[in-house]
Amino acid sequence: MGIPFLKGHGTQNDFVLLPDLYATLDLTPARVRVLCDRRAGLGADGVLRVVPSKAVDGAEDGLWFMDYRNGDGSVAEMCGNGVRVFARYLVDAGLVTEPEFTIGTRAGVRHVTVADDITVEMGKVSVTGTSLATVAGATFAGVAVNVGNPHLVCVVENAHRLASLDLSVQPWYDPEAFPEGVNIEFVVIEAPDRLRMRVHERGVGETRSCGTGTVAAVTGVLFGRGAQHGAATVDVPGGRVRVTVEPGGSTLAGPAVFTARGELDQAWWDRLSE
Amino acid sequence: MGIPFLKGHGTQNDFVLLPDLYATLDLTPARVRVLCDRRAGLGADGVLRVVPSKAVDGAEDGLWFMDYRNGDGSVAEMCGNGVRVFARYLVDAGLVTEPEFTIGTRAGVRHVTVADDITVEMGKVSVTGTSLATVAGATFAGVAVNVGNPHLVCVVENAHRLASLDLSVQPWYDPEAFPEGVNIEFVVIEAPDRLRMRVHERGVGETRSCGTGTVAAVTGVLFGRGAQHGAATVDVPGGRVRVTVEPGGSTLAGPAVFTARGELDQAWWDRLSE
Repeated sequence: MGIPFLKGHGTQNDFVLLPDLYATLDLTPARVRVLCDRRAGLGADGVLRVVPSKAVDGAEDGLWFMDYRNGDGSVAEMCGNGVRVFARYLVDAGLVTEPEFTIGTRAGVRHVTVADDITVEMGKVSVTGTSLATVAGATFAGVAVNVGNPHLVCVVENAHRLASLDLSVQPWYDPEAFPEGVNIEFVVIEAPDRLRMRVHERGVGETRSCGTGTVAAVTGVLFGRGAQHGAATVDVPGGRVRVTVEPGGSTLAGPAVFTARGELDQAWWDRLSE
Repeated sequence: MGIPFLKGHGTQNDFVLLPDLYATLDLTPARVRVLCDRRAGLGADGVLRVVPSKAVDGAEDGLWFMDYRNGDGSVAEMCGNGVRVFARYLVDAGLVTEPEFTIGTRAGVRHVTVADDITVEMGKVSVTGTSLATVAGATFAGVAVNVGNPHLVCVVENAHRLASLDLSVQPWYDPEAFPEGVNIEFVVIEAPDRLRMRVHERGVGETRSCGTGTVAAVTGVLFGRGAQHGAATVDVPGGRVRVTVEPGGSTLAGPAVFTARGELDQAWWDRLSE
């Protein structure tokens, strides 16, 4: 007998999900780090612990709460791709019985709808200005968008140019405009309602998907044509999502996939330093 | 019900192990690639499929055979760290009942001894000459060692210098000496029987452990003091192993750890393109 887990991903943003239905698991930062280590552990971008909201101070009662941890062991408020994986688990495990329900997160309660894809409320989005980014000597004008976290959305002329950008190094951005750093999206407008995007995440590097980044990308492209509301699909390296931006807030719809389930080795878990 | 698996590592060289005791699994290169993908799949350096040797053409009968695949889907002959994980599984699962036994591999039959650590026969080792390697403008003299695959063992003066080497880029080596490339070990002699090592693996980059590389390192250091046989521990970034080099051949002893076990999602597996 060991610690039950599932491994899954949302557009290749991947997670270890730990069903901890009685909130008894001692999930220390050290355990999160080793669990997410891609060679010493199971490997993931982060951990999604499933706990009843009554076990979490200040959370609205009667919900399943997404206790999300980054791979470095730190606590995070929300994760747009993780919440889809979390919601799919609740349905698969029979912990919710309706296709529409709410989930507790540190960023507040989120409404989700589970079908083939999973649609998650992403909150209000605002355009905060314009700025510049530079990649290998080429400078791009961008729209600054806040989705709870800061983004800079730069339109690139075509898919060939997008593919050729070297995002293995940090693009230059204006540190006065973004004193706490910024996620930078490079976007091709393939059709009015179809974008293709690559993203350099603040503090991480290029990733295969960034939920808030896709919301920022659609918002930034809409802004560029003088619109405040609309919808588009966004192709990221890890798959395809659909974003809507409306007066009341934004939504992100996309897949959630489980690849494996089982038990963490109890002796290994017990040995992990607290 | 899904495909049974275990995830484990030997000094942080990590593997998905698939018990396929009746050799019924359709393990295509495409499935291996997705399975080893660290975000879309479970994630590993390679796959260890456990099959009876009678299912493998040309294998000695009556053994458990290690069908090893690289993460890119290609077939490999042997893996010094993987065979420890494979052997530990056979003991844990009760598929062998003695602590000493033999395993079939594409490189031939290997004798293993399972205790706290697992000792694996690594075959004959030979010094083939000397050559040079260059890292960021600094040139190191090295001993060329063949352990079935080619290695160049360079002694570095101290642990601080070792830690500061930039192995994120390919070190320069003499392509005439190593027309098929070479694994390059940088080694500090901390005591006559205790080495510390980092390794740049041919076609891979820096890794946390390389089984044949540790055997090469001990052989190269022994050669430097005029000896052909001896033993030493080797600290690699992923842990500690012990190597013996004797007239009859070499052995590598080290840990094997399982982190998780369970089932791959059958629907996900079925969707993976053949």
